[in-house]
Amino acid sequence: MTFSNTLSQAIVTKKNPVLVGLDPRFDSLPEIIRSGVDPNNAVDVAAAFQQFCRAVIDVVAPLVPAVKPQSAFFEQYGPAGMVALATVVRYARSKGLVVIFDGKRNDIGSTAEAYAAGILGQNSPWGADALTVSPYLGDDSLSPFVNMADDRDAGVFVLVKTSNPGGAMLQDLVVDSKNSMGKTVYRRVAEHVQELSLSTKKANEIYGSVGAVVGATWPTQLAELRAAMPNCWFLVPGFGSQGGSAKAVAAAFDENGLGAIINNSRGIIFAYKKEPFQSKFGEQNWQAAIEAATLEMIEQLRAELPSSKE
Amino acid sequence: MTFSNTLSQAIVTKKNPVLVGLDPRFDSLPEIIRSGVDPNNAVDVAAAFQQFCRAVIDVVAPLVPAVKPQSAFFEQYGPAGMVALATVVRYARSKGLVVIFDGKRNDIGSTAEAYAAGILGQNSPWGADALTVSPYLGDDSLSPFVNMADDRDAGVFVLVKTSNPGGAMLQDLVVDSKNSMGKTVYRRVAEHVQELSLSTKKANEIYGSVGAVVGATWPTQLAELRAAMPNCWFLVPGFGSQGGSAKAVAAAFDENGLGAIINNSRGIIFAYKKEPFQSKFGEQNWQAAIEAATLEMIEQLRAELPSSKE
Repeated sequence: MTFSNTLSQAIVTKKNPVLVGLDPRFDSLPEIIRSGVDPNNAVDVAAAFQQFCRAVIDVVAPLVPAVKPQSAFFEQYGPAGMVALATVVRYARSKGLVVIFDGKRNDIGSTAEAYAAGILGQNSPWGADALTVSPYLGDDSLSPFVNMADDRDAGVFVLVKTSNPGGAMLQDLVVDSKNSMGKTVYRRVAEHVQELSLSTKKANEIYGSVGAVVGATWPTQLAELRAAMPNCWFLVPGFGSQGGSAKAVAAAFDENGLGAIINNSRGIIFAYKKEPFQSKFGEQNWQAAIEAATLEMIEQLRAELPSSKE
Repeated sequence: MTFSNTLSQAIVTKKNPVLVGLDPRFDSLPEIIRSGVDPNNAVDVAAAFQQFCRAVIDVVAPLVPAVKPQSAFFEQYGPAGMVALATVVRYARSKGLVVIFDGKRNDIGSTAEAYAAGILGQNSPWGADALTVSPYLGDDSLSPFVNMADDRDAGVFVLVKTSNPGGAMLQDLVVDSKNSMGKTVYRRVAEHVQELSLSTKKANEIYGSVGAVVGATWPTQLAELRAAMPNCWFLVPGFGSQGGSAKAVAAAFDENGLGAIINNSRGIIFAYKKEPFQSKFGEQNWQAAIEAATLEMIEQLRAELPSSKE
């Protein structure tokens, strides 16, 4: 089954497009997990991250279609962190979740093959369903990921328009070319990603294996890019903590409520540290706070996306 | 001591600017190391990578100033590969080599902080001297790396003009702007990298902590970028296997033979698989072949760089 089909089925089954970001940060972990852990001991912290992420997965697995572990927070703790990351990926998959490895990897072609094989290939020791990649190295750096995704029923999400303000510095530069007067860099990347996704698309499906990362913080560009990439899944970060609203992301979806997954990391996994959840549940009921925040996000999106209502 | 100073001293001491890339690929390892190793067992392969890289380091540590482990080849073997990578970094540093972690990492600012702290920070479990990063996410994604490099006497190399043909797709787009009519994307990135490096530069030094990756395969752009980034170290990939010659990289250096390090990965570490080294040494004398290939590259560069001659 293609990645697109797997993702569609997970969204239809769970009746929402929420992607929970697994971004463990030591200082934000619940006191009960931090207690007794030496923050300077990578093995200790990695074990705490694993415990925390497994508990988050236990809460969200019945509710949402997918999770996105952020490699940076695990890599910060070295090899021990990477061991925890692999365990978290496997645990999430064992609970039926689609797992997107957020590594924003890339390199020149022959090296990109190693990333593609490692994270998406047969016998991958990471075992993720999809990976985020950066486009700065160009088309021959993206091909190994696209080929691997196509071969292995995996997915690739290429950075197109990122959620951070600084992303505009390079992505919003306007390109002067005879064939595409006045287009932005992100638009040029988008057109290439659309071509790549079409090259992988099965005849009976709408979306191919190559998606795009498009921030919730840019509603106008989200609509522009939806039109420019009709056959690409969108991974939309920036909801919640970064300011993106349910209304802002509505343009990312097709008429069936498919075509996009909306990420929320801190707003869900650290819900017990923010109102109204902090007062209502307290840190000791941190898993209940995570559940409530997840359900709140699901409801917010359903209100804007009629077709994904029950 | 700043990263720039550390790197300068290492180059002056070794009398050459060769950067040996540690890119272990299982199929290319010497038979004596591959023998008995199950290529589908990540722990076995990771141990073989560690053995191989340590042996390469033993050969090159007396000869060259720096090595560059490529994260992708280690990540391909999951957590076991990452354990091997950390060991290789530590071993190279213990032998007095400057170690550049080639990960081409980046993410939005708050996540980039985790990469920066993890790979360059105090108590970093990786312990590298410098890291390669990608600029697609813009200025606020680069700042955490620059700040960390400045605080910790570490280095950052930002991708500017990569060695692969496909890099031109995005990097060579010509940007139309009132303030910089007709500049390429790579040139715009270069100007930002120059500013960042100046912001970290000490008054008595020429170069700051922020360098640029500029491929040996683009001699014209190498000269253009050397002029545009007078205070940035250049990490120059693409020598040897990718076609860059000693003559082609001469423009990367300043009048003291400093300001650039020239990477060679496969051409050195797998020298025993290519002529004339294969015939001369045979695979059983693979370490001698690596030494000969390293010395050959050093001589080739010295012929083009009079000031780095003995």
